[in-house]
Parts: sequence; C-alpha cells; structure tokens
Amino acid sequence: MPYAKGSGKSVVIALGGNALGNTPQEQLELVANTAVHIVDMIAEGINVVVSHGNGPQVGMINNAFDYAAAHDGKTPEMPFPECGAMSQGYIGYQLSQAILNEMKRRGIMRSTASVITQTVVYPEDPAFQNPTKPVGAFLTEEEAMRRAEETGATYKEDAGRGWRMVVASPKPQRIVEFDAIKDLMDDGYIVIAGGGGGVPVIERDDSYHGVPAVIDKDRSSAKIAADFKADMLVILTAVEKVAINFNTPDQKSIDTMTVEEAKAFIDEGQFAPGSMLPKVEACIEYLEAYPEGTALITSLECAAEGLKGKTGTLITR
Amino acid sequence: MPYAKGSGKSVVIALGGNALGNTPQEQLELVANTAVHIVDMIAEGINVVVSHGNGPQVGMINNAFDYAAAHDGKTPEMPFPECGAMSQGYIGYQLSQAILNEMKRRGIMRSTASVITQTVVYPEDPAFQNPTKPVGAFLTEEEAMRRAEETGATYKEDAGRGWRMVVASPKPQRIVEFDAIKDLMDDGYIVIAGGGGGVPVIERDDSYHGVPAVIDKDRSSAKIAADFKADMLVILTAVEKVAINFNTPDQKSIDTMTVEEAKAFIDEGQFAPGSMLPKVEACIEYLEAYPEGTALITSLECAAEGLKGKTGTLITR
Repeated sequence: MPYAKGSGKSVVIALGGNALGNTPQEQLELVANTAVHIVDMIAEGINVVVSHGNGPQVGMINNAFDYAAAHDGKTPEMPFPECGAMSQGYIGYQLSQAILNEMKRRGIMRSTASVITQTVVYPEDPAFQNPTKPVGAFLTEEEAMRRAEETGATYKEDAGRGWRMVVASPKPQRIVEFDAIKDLMDDGYIVIAGGGGGVPVIERDDSYHGVPAVIDKDRSSAKIAADFKADMLVILTAVEKVAINFNTPDQKSIDTMTVEEAKAFIDEGQFAPGSMLPKVEACIEYLEAYPEGTALITSLECAAEGLKGKTGTLITR
Repeated sequence: MPYAKGSGKSVVIALGGNALGNTPQEQLELVANTAVHIVDMIAEGINVVVSHGNGPQVGMINNAFDYAAAHDGKTPEMPFPECGAMSQGYIGYQLSQAILNEMKRRGIMRSTASVITQTVVYPEDPAFQNPTKPVGAFLTEEEAMRRAEETGATYKEDAGRGWRMVVASPKPQRIVEFDAIKDLMDDGYIVIAGGGGGVPVIERDDSYHGVPAVIDKDRSSAKIAADFKADMLVILTAVEKVAINFNTPDQKSIDTMTVEEAKAFIDEGQFAPGSMLPKVEACIEYLEAYPEGTALITSLECAAEGLKGKTGTLITR
C-alpha cells in the first residue's frame, strides 16, 4: 500500500563521506546522526531520494577481499563492480534502518526502500583512456601483472608503495533503476539509491555488463535529480557555504549564485578539483538539464535550515 | 512510470543455492542461466518476487573480513548483519542485471528492482537460546573469547578445527520492506527481495536493530507470499519432485499432496532435516496463512513447466 507523499518539495540529497564513517561500527553511529538531519527535512514534508558516496567503503571491501584472496587460500577474488554492489548493500541497509528508526521515533508514518542501483557509462568515455583512481590493496608487480592479464584491469605503481588497480571515473549517462526509484518516491517512500554513484555498467550487445570504475556520486545524484525534475538537488559536504578566495584573507562565503556566475568562478580556479569543484559542476549539470530547479550546497547540520532558504549556497539557472 | 503488469499469476520464487555459485565469477555464469529459467516464467505473464539464499556467500564475506581484520592491520571487523546486507547487495545486483539482460534479449519491456530487505525476528524466539549455525572463520580460543565479550555473540569449538561464531536461525515474523516490495510488484517490476531470508532485525524501544542470525530463505519467501496473498509460492531445489521413501527401493515421487498429507509424511520422518523438510514446512506455513494459494517444489530447470502444472510437486490446502 503506497504511503501518503509529503506535501513539500521533491529533493535529491547527496550525502558526503563525512555522513558515513570509516568502519561499520563508527558508521552505525554517524548514520544515526545523519538520519536525524535527514528526518528534520522529511518532517517538513519533502519527498526525498538519498544517495551516498562509497569511496572509503568500497576501498575497504576491495582491500579485505584482495587481502584474504591472496593469503587465506579460499576467498575468491571479488570483482570491483560486485564490491560496489556490496557497499550499496550494507550502507543502504544502515541508512534505511536509521531513517526508519528516526521516523518511527517522531511518529512519521512513512517507509524507506533501498534500491541497488546500476549506472550506465559509455565505453568510449575519455576517462577510460586514462584511469586515475587508485582502489584496493597494494600488490607485488608480479601479482599485479597476473591480475591485469586475467581481468583486463589497469595496475600502476603507487609512489614506491606497491602496485594498485587504477580505475576510471566516467560520466554517468543513465540510471538503470530510475523508473523504480521514481515510482517508489511517487508512492511516498524515502528512497535510498544511487549509492557510490551506482555500480558502473556498459551496454554491449544490448546487455548490461559491470565494469571496474568509480562514478562521482554527486554527478549521479544530479542525473537522478534532472531526470526526476526534482525541485531541488542538495549536495552535502563539510562546510556550510561555498567560498571564493578560499583560505585567503579575502575568503568570502557565497549565499547565492547563478550557473553563469558559478562558471565564471570555475574559470578563475576558485574551486578545488576533487573537492568543491565537482560539487559545483554537478549542480550546473542538474540546472542545465532542468532549469526550473534549484541546487543547494551546504553541510549536513545546516541542511534543514538550508532547505528553508536560511543558509547554504543556493545555485539557480 | 509503472510498467504493464503481466497478465498471469503472482508468484514468489525462492532460489536455491544451486542457482547461485561459490565464487562471484562462477555465480555470474550460473545467474545468467538462472535468469533464462526465470524469464521463461516471466514470458508467460507472471508477476514475480525473486528471493534467494545466501549461505555460502555470507559465509565467504564474513570469512574474508574476519581473516583480513585479524591479519592486515587495517580492515575493520564487519558485523554479521552487515555481511548479510553485503551479500544481498552483490547477489541482488547480479540477479537484477541478468534478468534485465535476458528480458531485453527477448524484447520483454519490463524492469527489475532489487530491494535491500530486513526481516523482523522475535528476541524471545527459542532459536536464540540454542544457536547452532556455524558461520565465518575459525579463530583461536583467545580471539573467540575476546570477540564474544565485545559483541555478545556465541562462539563454539568446532570439531578440533578451532572456534567459530554460531548463530541462531529464528522464525521470520515480518518483512520490514513488504510494502515497497508489494508496490513495486503492483507497478509491474520484477522484484528481487528477501535475499538470504532478509537481514535479521529485532525491535527494541520501537527501533530496528540488526542481530547476528540467519533466517531460512524459504520461510521468508513463504512469509512474503502469504502477506502478498500471492497465487503461488515456488521453492526451487535440486530435484524435480519431492519424494518419499527417498533413497530406498520404494522411492516414489509425489505429484500433488495436501497440507494434511504433507504433515503425515513429516510425522513419518520422510523428509530430511536441513534439506527437504524445511522446504515442505515453508509451503505449509504459506498455505495455512493463505489457503487459496498453491505451493510448488521443483528444480530451476523444471520451474516453467511446473508453473503450467506439468511437473514438480504441487501442494495445496
């Protein structure tokens, strides 16, 4: 039986790494705190898809399997897409449970659904020509060469510490489970989806195939938000507002900016690559695909106030 | 946008361990074959929830983490409920992708959704008084005692080979995500849910908490089928039909039996505990809760023919 939808906006929230933790136990506690802030927003009536990163978690899973496979004589090697799916499984379980518990505590009669998500990437994406993201365990050169031959994955020597698999970070083109995510949200569920950007798959011979790659979860969230025509994309990070002239005496927080202003700041090199830059870029991708939307970058703690327009950096077309 | 539902029966299918594999690579191939048989049924118009076991997989995950945590100096210990959620993540991903690919190949315009599932068990379930299922790695007595103290889990010496965690197998009382599973099925999706029987959770202070336990996936499937009032519960196993006088000169396959007849066979000790017995019991649980239904026990290969009434063992109220 569908639940009553909230009366408020439709929102896609991308949780940053600081909303999770580095160990499952730490994560369980952090996730309970994260759930409080998410339910603060749900209590205002929003209908929400929650996505999350998985960088440390998929690395930890891949590491544990690499290590056990190399040493215990019985653990199989775990392909990287499956590691991503495993991270979605356990993070999705913890988020779903924590949000449910917090809603129950406040008497909010809605439910959650955590959907394993695949994201289509193009095999011709230029990122595949130059994989740069190191993942998993350090291996010997011999071990790395053997695996490279077996799996076709790329291994690189990492600063004298050993050999590691490096994977590409291609652009998300399509969310395979988009319809299910949308139908669940339309039925009033709090949907957890797009974890870790989704398991990357390519289409070949009209079939999906997992590929070892990582997808930026903010870009996947932007894609879900744009396809959904969500009223708002909320990207949560460690700071309350985006700043320019960051870490200089002239540092200045931004309350609002247009896509055009954001692009000008990018051209000035105002946002750090691998940090604020991809978040601002994800907002731009969403707003260019769905100009009626608004994007918000703020911290988890400020998110509920930010939704009311009281803080954070708001970006509009 | 919801999909057109099939015109046929609503069916809950419980996949046996032989439908998956012992390593992720082996599994990917077996799952593709499993998908062919499932899509044979979907092609007949059924609306289906697919559940699956996770015994070997959750053991493998728990083992790999136990081993890496004990030796590599950085992998955290992974709680057992999270291991179950991880197994749902990667098996769900593989099943979802394989079924989607097989449907695309045949031009069936439906989609899949894999939902991370929690299953409520009662803390006072008598199974918790006597945990019997060994899971995870062999530990030293010292290590086992330390973990027992830290986590409250039970460890037992296992036939001179070392100490292992033993967990209970309590009865599934409620599927937390049941509404989402039902709404997705009503919207025409092929739903993958209840993997490994669901992550076992108890309710305490009106909150869900994961507990280290295993739930029989056939019983969880029976619970989903009964709550759904599904037309049919299909339990897939290694044999085409249930037999009595098994492995004797008088062995006889059963085409149909009533709940009453099944109970009489159980009283005679006809079905092996840990093998056919729990499957027949799961069918009885479903039929007693939903007498209008029918239950089928057969092999994966015979399932599509079984649905048409041509083979397998059919059980009715």
